[in-house]
Amino acid sequence: MKNLKGACMFGQSGGPTSVINSSAAGVFTEALKQGNITAVYGAEHGIVGILGEKFFDISKEDPKEIELLKYTPSSALGSARYKLKDADVDDTDYKRILEVFKKYDIRYFFYNGGNDSMDTCNKISKYLQSVGYDCNVIGVPKTIDNDLYGTDHCPGYASAAKYIANTIMECNLDAKVYNFGCVCIIEIMGRNAGWLTAAAALAGYKGLGADLIYLPEVPFDMAKFLASVKNVCEKNDNKCIVAVSEGLRFADGTYVSEAKASANDTFGHAQLGGLAQVLASVVKEKLGVKVRPIELSLLQRCGAHLASKTDVEEAFNAGVFAVKSACAGETDKMVIFERTTDDKGNYACKNVLMPLELAANTEKKVPLDWITADGSYVSEDFIEYALPLIQGDSKAPLEDGLPRFARLKKVYANLD
Amino acid sequence: MKNLKGACMFGQSGGPTSVINSSAAGVFTEALKQGNITAVYGAEHGIVGILGEKFFDISKEDPKEIELLKYTPSSALGSARYKLKDADVDDTDYKRILEVFKKYDIRYFFYNGGNDSMDTCNKISKYLQSVGYDCNVIGVPKTIDNDLYGTDHCPGYASAAKYIANTIMECNLDAKVYNFGCVCIIEIMGRNAGWLTAAAALAGYKGLGADLIYLPEVPFDMAKFLASVKNVCEKNDNKCIVAVSEGLRFADGTYVSEAKASANDTFGHAQLGGLAQVLASVVKEKLGVKVRPIELSLLQRCGAHLASKTDVEEAFNAGVFAVKSACAGETDKMVIFERTTDDKGNYACKNVLMPLELAANTEKKVPLDWITADGSYVSEDFIEYALPLIQGDSKAPLEDGLPRFARLKKVYANLD
Repeated sequence: MKNLKGACMFGQSGGPTSVINSSAAGVFTEALKQGNITAVYGAEHGIVGILGEKFFDISKEDPKEIELLKYTPSSALGSARYKLKDADVDDTDYKRILEVFKKYDIRYFFYNGGNDSMDTCNKISKYLQSVGYDCNVIGVPKTIDNDLYGTDHCPGYASAAKYIANTIMECNLDAKVYNFGCVCIIEIMGRNAGWLTAAAALAGYKGLGADLIYLPEVPFDMAKFLASVKNVCEKNDNKCIVAVSEGLRFADGTYVSEAKASANDTFGHAQLGGLAQVLASVVKEKLGVKVRPIELSLLQRCGAHLASKTDVEEAFNAGVFAVKSACAGETDKMVIFERTTDDKGNYACKNVLMPLELAANTEKKVPLDWITADGSYVSEDFIEYALPLIQGDSKAPLEDGLPRFARLKKVYANLD
Repeated sequence: MKNLKGACMFGQSGGPTSVINSSAAGVFTEALKQGNITAVYGAEHGIVGILGEKFFDISKEDPKEIELLKYTPSSALGSARYKLKDADVDDTDYKRILEVFKKYDIRYFFYNGGNDSMDTCNKISKYLQSVGYDCNVIGVPKTIDNDLYGTDHCPGYASAAKYIANTIMECNLDAKVYNFGCVCIIEIMGRNAGWLTAAAALAGYKGLGADLIYLPEVPFDMAKFLASVKNVCEKNDNKCIVAVSEGLRFADGTYVSEAKASANDTFGHAQLGGLAQVLASVVKEKLGVKVRPIELSLLQRCGAHLASKTDVEEAFNAGVFAVKSACAGETDKMVIFERTTDDKGNYACKNVLMPLELAANTEKKVPLDWITADGSYVSEDFIEYALPLIQGDSKAPLEDGLPRFARLKKVYANLD
């Protein structure tokens, strides 16, 4: 526990979310207040910007624009997908980071991201310790996938879940409007964890959900899937809505989205589209019904106009807490969320610290006992878990009828 | 001009929009007030419900739910895609409609839809006239495509345009977030008219739009398209956003979305996905860059959470105006919108009547002089046209953090 004086560096990493900039706003707002922090830098494209000595002087930004970051989707500083090698294999990047940190007297380092980013953050933290460079390092969680270990949930998840639930409610009304049926297959992000796809059940809780929900936690069985769709179609005039996780796999571990034409051509022809297209093609061929594949794509992770106010505030608070913790001498930790209740017994969220190495590269999946026995829906446990997270609306102010997102000046810091 | 006393029938037809139910709310609210209207019926699945004698008694609905229709997407009564034959070829359906109208003493008929629906409405109007059955018939316009003849714009268009502009702004931030590039191809509805795709320029007006915009009004040239994408990629680190209308066609009239592998395989392999996938595949093959096809699909026409308040109000007013006009003795007309200015010189919209036959089956396209010479963007004229239409926010109240859409009781009217 060391109380340090020096500059702080913040970076954003991995896939964007609707609220990662809210965490940035929290970090910046708090860091600009702290007497021990002599300068606040924002790395352009995360670790790539640190290596390339490309980062912005946040003190040059208008406080109003920092406030607007709360409502601005994607990573305002730019993101990266850059994996650091182990330091004992190749320490080139680490030496460079140390060089840059020394040059700019970086004594606080905050890195905002998911599993891979926490791995990066952890490696840097451990390296700096190993060479005896004093720097308080705190990871700030972020991922729409909600798969970070140790935390009740992750900033970014709730807003994506709210977007998905709202969108499925609207699609439900649209897809069932005619006097003829349609099987609508909605593909949702999530390679290994089904948290996002499970959000379809929130729409179901409001009576306008998907009839069937398939998560990657359970091996996918095409025959059972077709039987379930057929069953819904028979009951509902061929009207059926299915929510599927992009990462669905067969029992043999191969992705359903990559199902190719086989010798017997069991599952239709090879598809260049994603999972929804593969499944739509199979349903069309096997059941002879009208189909409509829909991929929510980027929209679900950047739909800040449908963000959860709870999520936006929690993301901001996580940034503030990270800075306060570091300034109090904490290091080598990640901020996590503990679910608690306020004095009225309502949902509340408490910030806690966890050792950084626990967060790195581990994945938290949807508990198997939250998935129904036939693997085609989720239980009430999920609703209880997710519903408090999506409460409240949050969106950017309007200008010309469209969102007024933050516009940063992005003035490069330069000591040369 | 006849002032009639009797029941009124309202039907919704064609593709849903975010505001077609707002017109229903306008018709119902006004019709329930009018002394000359003895009963208010809503046809289930439009003309199909009339033929099948399946319609709801709207007086049984809670006024609060009728109010919520303003914020509820899709067609609450159910829609249809049913084309009436010409009465002189086969008058079976017309005789049946007359029979039902007589049985329920229908003296007011309001039909809400686009080109095809106005054709249906016109045919019924002319038939009822030809057999001397007194019934005041008024068409209420609706189409996200904005392609109805005679009206400045159509209810439903502005909300879809607002959804598209907002979504492209968000996707722009997301797709350009990394330190490596991606060509993002966004497919927007519109078979023959490019009004919806042009809405991408509204996002561009706010600095977060598409680099290239292709409308179906101009024949598509793959070589020119590839050259333009390449040019943007070279300038912007391979970051390029393209908005395309689903109905793009080559000069020979064939749809680009149906481009098949040819002997020389010029445009890549046959695709089972839509246009965005075809173009993404070609760009990937020819330019060797990362691509991401996105199809806005149903989301753009049912995204009521991003509706334009202006659109919602105009749609409601169109319904009210239709009823008032019919009760004043007007018939065989469609409601259209005339653009005007209020006493402060701001945009205003005036309801006017136009002969129904003028609206039937004609299409209004984006003026060619609003499209740039190279066919890859739209001019400032479009911004001036569209910007006033997307002003103001409108969305359903929240319940459990999700929209509380109208829940109609749907009590069948039954005289048997």
